[in-house]
Amino acid sequence: MYRETNIRSIVKGVTWRIVATSTTIGIVYIFFGRLDLAIATGLIETILKIALYWGHERVWFKIRWGRKKIEPFNIWLTGLPLSGKTTIGDRVFEELQKLDIPIERIDSKDIREIIPDIGYSREERNRHLKRVGHLIQTLQKNSISTVASFVSPYRESRETIRNMVQNTIIVYVKADIESCKKRDYKGIYQKALNGEIENFTGVSDIYEEPTCANIVIDTDLVSVEEATKKIVEFVKKRYVK
Amino acid sequence: MYRETNIRSIVKGVTWRIVATSTTIGIVYIFFGRLDLAIATGLIETILKIALYWGHERVWFKIRWGRKKIEPFNIWLTGLPLSGKTTIGDRVFEELQKLDIPIERIDSKDIREIIPDIGYSREERNRHLKRVGHLIQTLQKNSISTVASFVSPYRESRETIRNMVQNTIIVYVKADIESCKKRDYKGIYQKALNGEIENFTGVSDIYEEPTCANIVIDTDLVSVEEATKKIVEFVKKRYVK
Repeated sequence: MYRETNIRSIVKGVTWRIVATSTTIGIVYIFFGRLDLAIATGLIETILKIALYWGHERVWFKIRWGRKKIEPFNIWLTGLPLSGKTTIGDRVFEELQKLDIPIERIDSKDIREIIPDIGYSREERNRHLKRVGHLIQTLQKNSISTVASFVSPYRESRETIRNMVQNTIIVYVKADIESCKKRDYKGIYQKALNGEIENFTGVSDIYEEPTCANIVIDTDLVSVEEATKKIVEFVKKRYVK
Repeated sequence: MYRETNIRSIVKGVTWRIVATSTTIGIVYIFFGRLDLAIATGLIETILKIALYWGHERVWFKIRWGRKKIEPFNIWLTGLPLSGKTTIGDRVFEELQKLDIPIERIDSKDIREIIPDIGYSREERNRHLKRVGHLIQTLQKNSISTVASFVSPYRESRETIRNMVQNTIIVYVKADIESCKKRDYKGIYQKALNGEIENFTGVSDIYEEPTCANIVIDTDLVSVEEATKKIVEFVKKRYVK
């Protein structure tokens, strides 16, 4: 982050006044050929314009028109492993960055890489998502919106997020379990089916389908680009007018 | 967060130009009594000043003087329970907010209130602090500095924070264990001594004293105000010039 010192702003203001007043003096002198009156014009202009600029700012300060409050929002992508949450989340994040609002991407995988021993039991998952909720809360306190993607298979932990975090948009990234298995480029479904991974959502653990998602993306029918457009439109309509 | 729409900025620019040019025309007319030449002066002034303002901005853009880079920092207060970390942290946070930099307060107690089942074993504490490190990392990505207060009794977890987070200032809030017991307004030392709390730092768990803290505050000798001043001076000198 860069910060302008007070003295820089003052010096910049002074140099601009010198340029502006000299210009006025120059124009008036060329038109009328009287240097003394031209300088007088310039000096009066300087004093008047400093006062007028102040007045102009104060008037605009009272005008609400054209000022929009942006409330931080949280896009929460939930769905089976390999349903496409991360891919869609990344694209949505890319598009939302273009709106020039402070926004942060949070993906399950990144956190689990840093803290590998979070665990996958119901209790551990719920605690994990409560902490993610706290992280998003802290970001929102600083006006930062989020695009979060987590399997988050239990209704109760999605409810926790909704209660902790304002303006949460639940996006259910729906995919047929058979489609997910086909996409299994990491080989994780195979491992789960072989019994090598415990508590694997969709195989050895339940995924409780969201009943009141704000957006449902059926990845068997909709492309990543179409999904991205739908989510971005939703956000633009409600939070970034 | 508020945001000015593009159209607001344009309209504001136009209204200022109207005020500024009318002023020039008015002054010139009063001085010279020729309305046609006054208007011509005003129009030429408008065109010239738009170009000059642009040039002025571009020149200043290249001048580094008066621009300071503020790197986010992390003040990390460590010490025995009731050593005074939270009190000092709160005061330091209050003072640093006056510097008008984005800053966030993180206290162990607040997080443990939201997520009560974090645990106190060595493994659980280390995992907990890794997550706190991730939180601070995410804030730093958004230029937000932090004042964090955690018992953080183990050298390894403080090392983790130092490695994860840039510009960490370790502040060891030193207090004699007997002083802490005397300050025991919450009755937690008594409970620990009675064996009602497990893994209680200073009683049933070890506190590994920091050997390379950036600042050591001996709370048996130094007041909260003196401690605050010392920490704030340290930050000002290195990170907020």
